[in-house]
Amino acid sequence: MDATGPNADLLFPSDAHSLSLAREIYGNLASLPILSAHTHVEAAVLERNEPFAGPADLLVTPDHYLLRVLHASGVDLSSLGRRERGGEREDRAHAGGRTGEPAESGGREIWRVLCRNWPVFRGTNSRLWLELELAGLFGVTDPLTEATADSTYDRIASALAEDDYRPRALYERFGIEVLATTDGALDALTSHGTLAADPHFEGRVIPTFRPDNVLDATRDDFASNVADLGRHHDLDTDGWQGYCEAIRMERERFIAHGAVASDHGPGLPDTIDLSEHEAERLFADVLGGSATEADRTKLTAHLLFKMAELSCDDGLVMQLHAGVLRDHDGAAHARFGSDIGADFPVGVSFTRGLRPLLERFGSDPRFTLVVYSVDETAFARELAPMASYYPALRLGAPWWYLDAPDAITRALSQMAEVAGFSRAAGFVDDARSFCSIPARHEVARRVTAAFLARLVAEHRLSLQEATDTGVDLSYLLPKSTFGL
Amino acid sequence: MDATGPNADLLFPSDAHSLSLAREIYGNLASLPILSAHTHVEAAVLERNEPFAGPADLLVTPDHYLLRVLHASGVDLSSLGRRERGGEREDRAHAGGRTGEPAESGGREIWRVLCRNWPVFRGTNSRLWLELELAGLFGVTDPLTEATADSTYDRIASALAEDDYRPRALYERFGIEVLATTDGALDALTSHGTLAADPHFEGRVIPTFRPDNVLDATRDDFASNVADLGRHHDLDTDGWQGYCEAIRMERERFIAHGAVASDHGPGLPDTIDLSEHEAERLFADVLGGSATEADRTKLTAHLLFKMAELSCDDGLVMQLHAGVLRDHDGAAHARFGSDIGADFPVGVSFTRGLRPLLERFGSDPRFTLVVYSVDETAFARELAPMASYYPALRLGAPWWYLDAPDAITRALSQMAEVAGFSRAAGFVDDARSFCSIPARHEVARRVTAAFLARLVAEHRLSLQEATDTGVDLSYLLPKSTFGL
Amino acid sequence: MDATGPNADLLFPSDAHSLSLAREIYGNLASLPILSAHTHVEAAVLERNEPFAGPADLLVTPDHYLLRVLHASGVDLSSLGRRERGGEREDRAHAGGRTGEPAESGGREIWRVLCRNWPVFRGTNSRLWLELELAGLFGVTDPLTEATADSTYDRIASALAEDDYRPRALYERFGIEVLATTDGALDALTSHGTLAADPHFEGRVIPTFRPDNVLDATRDDFASNVADLGRHHDLDTDGWQGYCEAIRMERERFIAHGAVASDHGPGLPDTIDLSEHEAERLFADVLGGSATEADRTKLTAHLLFKMAELSCDDGLVMQLHAGVLRDHDGAAHARFGSDIGADFPVGVSFTRGLRPLLERFGSDPRFTLVVYSVDETAFARELAPMASYYPALRLGAPWWYLDAPDAITRALSQMAEVAGFSRAAGFVDDARSFCSIPARHEVARRVTAAFLARLVAEHRLSLQEATDTGVDLSYLLPKSTFGL
Repeated sequence: MDATGPNADLLFPSDAHSLSLAREIYGNLASLPILSAHTHVEAAVLERNEPFAGPADLLVTPDHYLLRVLHASGVDLSSLGRRERGGEREDRAHAGGRTGEPAESGGREIWRVLCRNWPVFRGTNSRLWLELELAGLFGVTDPLTEATADSTYDRIASALAEDDYRPRALYERFGIEVLATTDGALDALTSHGTLAADPHFEGRVIPTFRPDNVLDATRDDFASNVADLGRHHDLDTDGWQGYCEAIRMERERFIAHGAVASDHGPGLPDTIDLSEHEAERLFADVLGGSATEADRTKLTAHLLFKMAELSCDDGLVMQLHAGVLRDHDGAAHARFGSDIGADFPVGVSFTRGLRPLLERFGSDPRFTLVVYSVDETAFARELAPMASYYPALRLGAPWWYLDAPDAITRALSQMAEVAGFSRAAGFVDDARSFCSIPARHEVARRVTAAFLARLVAEHRLSLQEATDTGVDLSYLLPKSTFGL
Repeated sequence: MDATGPNADLLFPSDAHSLSLAREIYGNLASLPILSAHTHVEAAVLERNEPFAGPADLLVTPDHYLLRVLHASGVDLSSLGRRERGGEREDRAHAGGRTGEPAESGGREIWRVLCRNWPVFRGTNSRLWLELELAGLFGVTDPLTEATADSTYDRIASALAEDDYRPRALYERFGIEVLATTDGALDALTSHGTLAADPHFEGRVIPTFRPDNVLDATRDDFASNVADLGRHHDLDTDGWQGYCEAIRMERERFIAHGAVASDHGPGLPDTIDLSEHEAERLFADVLGGSATEADRTKLTAHLLFKMAELSCDDGLVMQLHAGVLRDHDGAAHARFGSDIGADFPVGVSFTRGLRPLLERFGSDPRFTLVVYSVDETAFARELAPMASYYPALRLGAPWWYLDAPDAITRALSQMAEVAGFSRAAGFVDDARSFCSIPARHEVARRVTAAFLARLVAEHRLSLQEATDTGVDLSYLLPKSTFGL
Repeated sequence: MDATGPNADLLFPSDAHSLSLAREIYGNLASLPILSAHTHVEAAVLERNEPFAGPADLLVTPDHYLLRVLHASGVDLSSLGRRERGGEREDRAHAGGRTGEPAESGGREIWRVLCRNWPVFRGTNSRLWLELELAGLFGVTDPLTEATADSTYDRIASALAEDDYRPRALYERFGIEVLATTDGALDALTSHGTLAADPHFEGRVIPTFRPDNVLDATRDDFASNVADLGRHHDLDTDGWQGYCEAIRMERERFIAHGAVASDHGPGLPDTIDLSEHEAERLFADVLGGSATEADRTKLTAHLLFKMAELSCDDGLVMQLHAGVLRDHDGAAHARFGSDIGADFPVGVSFTRGLRPLLERFGSDPRFTLVVYSVDETAFARELAPMASYYPALRLGAPWWYLDAPDAITRALSQMAEVAGFSRAAGFVDDARSFCSIPARHEVARRVTAAFLARLVAEHRLSLQEATDTGVDLSYLLPKSTFGL
C-alpha cells in the first residue's frame, strides 16, 4: 500500500498489454453486487444493528487468520481478546458468538499489538484485505506501525460511532445482495426471523444449515446433541427412524427461515450407502456406547450420503469441506475453544471418498454439491476431473488458506483447464469479519481479472468471453449454484 | 479464437522480448514431422480409408474429453452417440471400435448439442484443439454457437465427402511419420498387417501391446481372457509356465506386426518380485477362484514386474500409467461401458510402488520404462527424481487431464529443474480423435516454445540451446525413446 | 550462459518495469555475508587447508546432484570416482569423508565425462550453480563440451594449485560468516576444535548434531551405535536412563564445540509422547532384539519427541527433514554406499506426524523447529499453515530437489501467502561441494529478488518492504533462527 492507499492496479500484471486487459475486465466486475453465499458473520449483528464495539472487536478478535499469525509471532491469544473458557465444550457451529468480547478498555491494546506486528503479515491475504478495508472504509492509508497505532485506532473508533457505520448501513454500502450465515443445527435462528420480518431492512440474510453437531458420530457430544434434537422436534431420536425424521424436520425449519444450502465439515470426505438395517444397528450402537471408532466413522459417512438423498428432496444445496484436522493444538483448544487458527489441512481422497455419493446422486438434476478443498493438489487431480463429469458437482472456490492471489490464480488455472469455468460454484468469501466481505470480493475479482487477462493475451479467450467469464465467477455462478 | 481463426501468437507470452523468442523457437518446431507414439485411433480407419461418417462421428463421439464436459453440462450420453450396451462387458482395450457409431441422422443433432454448449469449454484444452482443427482443417473460423451449428456442420460434412479428407490423405497432410495405435492382447491386428503390406500406403502404423486384459488379475474376466490367450497360442494357460509362454508369444506377435512398445494401465503402480513358486501358487489360486483380493493384487504387481523382465529380452519399451480409478460412475458404466470420461485420478506412490522393478531393471541398458502420471504432484516429488537417477526411466509427457497449456508448463518446469530435459520421453498425443492429432502437437509445441522462451529471457538457456531442446521434446526424444 | 559468462540479469524477469525492480532489490542482497547454516562440506577441509586435489574431486565426485544425472545418462558411478565399498556399512552421517577420493589420474577422465554429458543438465540447478562457479571463481566462461574438457580442466587445476584457492582463502573470498557442517553422533569433531583454537583462522566453523545413527531404532546398526555411545560417555546405555543421559551428554559435547542446531532425517515425521515406562520397555525390546518393526518405528517417533524436549533445555535448534526413501537402489547401495543420488521423496503427513511434538513444544519460547520438505505440496497444505500458528515452527527453505529457480519461486509464493515471510527460516544452501556455496546463495538471492519484484509490481509490497524482506530471507532470518 502506498501512502495514498491501495493502488488502482493492485494485483494486476505489469506488462502494458496485459495490464490494460486486466483493467478493462475488472472494470466490468468491480461494481457487481456481492453475493455472500457462505460467511461466518452473525445474523444477530444485523438484527441488533448496534454500533460495532471498536476496531479490535470488529477487525481483529473474530478473525482467526489474524489470530493465527499473531500467535505464531509470540502473542498469547488471551491478549488478543480471546476469552478463556470454562470446562464446557463450546460448540463450533452452534455458538452464538464465536469469540469472547474483549473489554472496551482492552481494544486499544489489541490494536497496538496488531500494529506492532504488522510487518509479519507482508505477503498474506490478511494484509491485503485489512489494508483495503482500512483505506476503503475508514480512509486510513497510513501504514500500521507502533507509531500510528493510536491515531488509526481513534480514527476507526470515531467512525464506528457514526450511524453510517452501523451494520445495516454497511450492508447497504457494501452492495450485498444476499448474506448466508452459517448456523448449527438447533440454532434458534431468531435473528434471521426478525430480520426477514423487519420492514425497515431490505437486505436478505439467510441461514445455512451446518449440522455437524448432530451428524458427526465421532464427536463426544453426538448422543447428547441427538437427544436435544429429539426434544426440539418432539420426536424419539433414540431410534433411527425418529432421528432421520428429526433431521428432515430440522432441514425444513432452516428452509422455512430462508436457507438454500447446508454445509458439512467432516474430517474425511468419505461416504457410504448402508442398508436401513445396518444404519439402524450402527446408530443404536453409537447411542448405546458400544460402537467402535470404525463404527462411528462408518455411520458418519452414511449420514453424509443420507444428506445428499435429502437434498434431492428438499433442494438444499450441499456444501462439503473435508480434509482438515481441527483443534490441532489440544492445550490451546482446552483454553480457548475452536476457531483460534489451529485447524490444519491433511491430504484426503475425494475420488474414493465421494464415489458412493456421486454414483448415486451425481447425475441427479435435483442435486447440487459444492466441494471446497484446502489441499490445492486436489483441484487438478480429483475435484476438477470429477466436476467435469458429474453434473451435480460444483467446484468450490479456493478458500481459507488458499484465498490469496497466487493460490486463487493457480486454482483458476487448474480448474479451468480440466473442467472449464462453468463447473465452478463461483466466489464465496467465507468471511470471519463483517468488514472484510467487500475486500475479499475485491481481491478475488482483481485476481480473476488478471488471470483472464492472461488468457486473452495468449489468445485463448476473446476479451468479451473473458469479461463474461469474470462476471460468471464473481456473480452469476454463485447466483445459479445456490439459487439466489 | 478471433473471427479469422487462431492467432499466430496463440499461447505465446505478451511482453515483446519473450514473444519474439517464442516465435523464433516455435518457428523451428512448427513443421517437424509428427511422431504419434501413443494414440487411441484405430488402424482400421486407415486400412479402410473410407470417408469419415460425419462431423459428430469424427470429432465428438470418440472423444471422451468432450463427452465428459457435455455430460457435466446436463447432456445425456445417449444423445451424444454413445450406444447403450447389452449385458456383456465391452473390453476397454480389446474393442475394435470404442464407441457406438451414431446414426447418420443423429450426427447433426449431436453437433448442435456441442455448439449450443460450446461456452462451457472456455479455458479447456478441448476448446483449443477443436478450434485449431476446425480452422486448420476445415477453414471454420466462426465461433461455434447454436446459430452457426448447421452451417459449420454442413461445411465439415461436405469437406469430409472429398477424397482429400479420407484418412490416408489426412495422415499425409498431418505430416505423421509414425502412428502407434493401442491394442489389447488378443486383438487380431489384421489392419496393421494389411497396412504394412499395402504398397499404396507409405505411412507407418504400428500396434502397441496393451495387455491389461490378460495381466490384471483383479479383473473379473481375467480367467476367461487367459483361457482365450491359451487357445490363441495353442498353449495350456491353466498353468503358470504355459501362461508365461503365451504372454511371451503374444508379445512376439505384436513385435512381428511392428510394435515397439507395450502399455500398462494398472490401478496402482505397485510391483513385486515373487519367487517362481509363489507366483505359480498365486496364479493357480486366482484361476481356481480361491484367491483373496490381496492375492490378486499381488499377482498383478508381479506380472508388471515380469513385463519389465520380458522387455529386457524382446526390447518392447514399457509404458505405464497408474493412479486412475476407472469407471467411477457404476451406473453409467453399466449403460455405456468404459471411456465415457468417468475415470478419475487418485494419489499413488510411484517411489514405493516401482522400487522393486527399478532396483532390478532400472539400470539395465536393454530396458526403457516410460511412466505417465495424471497427478502432477508426482512429477517433482517422485518421477523426476527417479528419472534423474535410473537410466531406464523416462518421464512421460503430461497427458490426459494435464495435456493443457498451463499444466504442460508446470510439468516442464518441474521435470526440467530436477531431471533436465533429456530424461523426458517427449510429447505423445494420446489422441482419441484422429483429427485432433496435429492440433495436440501444435499446442504442445507452442507451449514448449513459450516455456523455453522464458528460460532464454531469464538467461538460463541460450536461444540455440532452447531451440535444440524444443526439437528434442517435440521430435527427437520420442524418436529415440521409442526407437522409431 | 553467454560466452562472456553468466548474464548480470540472470533469473530476472524480462518486462522492463519488473526487471528494474528485481535489479534494485538484488543490489541490496548481492553482497550480504553468507550464513551457511546447513551444509555437508567437511570441517577437515578447512582445518587442513590443503590445495583441493583437482577439478573432479572438488566439483564432481562429492556432488550427488551431478552423480545422479550422469548415472541416469548411462555413466557408471565407478567411473565418476565413487569408490566401491567392502562389506561394512558406511555410515551416512558418521563418515569422515563421504566419497572415495578419485585417483589423481582419474580426475581428468571424470571431468571429460561431465563435459561430454553437459547438455543433459540444461534446465537444472546443477547447471546454474556450476556455471556460476566456473565463471566467478575460475574465469571459465567457455561452454563445457568434449572439445573444451581439457582446457577447462587445466585452467581449474592450475588455479587450484595457487594459494588463493586453498579452502581458507576461498572461505574468506566467499564472504562466509558462519559455516555449520553436518556431523554424526560420535563424530570426533577434532577439526572443529582445531579450527576454533587456531588464531590464524578467523572464520566460524561449527558442527551440527546429526544423531540418526543413535536415534533411528529401525536401523540395523542402532544397537551397536548405542553401545558405542555408551562407551564414549562411559555410561551404561543398555538401559533407558543411561541411554537418555548419554544422548544428553552427546548434545552437550556438540554444544561445547559450537553447535547451535541438531538435524534429523527420519523416514517419517511421526512423533509420539510415550510414558517413561513404555519407552523403557520398547528400548529394551529393541536392544534385546525382540521388538517388532512397529515397536522400532514407535520408539523412533518417541525419540524425535524427546529431542524437542532436550532442545528446550539446551537450546539446540531442531532441524527435521522427513519424507525421503533413502538408498532406493539396493544394488547400487551395496556397491557404493549412500549419497549417490538414489534417495527419493515420498508423501508423508506432517500435520498428523508432528502433532504430538507441536502440541507439547510448539508454543514453548525456548524451542525452535525448522522443517524441510522435499514434497512441495506440503508447503501450502501443511507446513505453512502450521508455521503460521506455532511460534516454534519455522519453514525450512525449499532445498535439495526443490532448490531451483521455479521451485523456490513456487515455495516462496505458497509460504508467504499462508504464513507471511517472517515464518521462514531463511535460505540454507545444503551444499555438497564447497565451491557451490556462493553460487547457491546467489541463485537463491536472485530468485528471491525476482519474486519480490513481482509483488512490488503488483502493488502488494512497497519497494522498501520488498528489499527488507529480501535481506531477511537471505541473511537476517537464518541469523535469528539459528542464533548465529
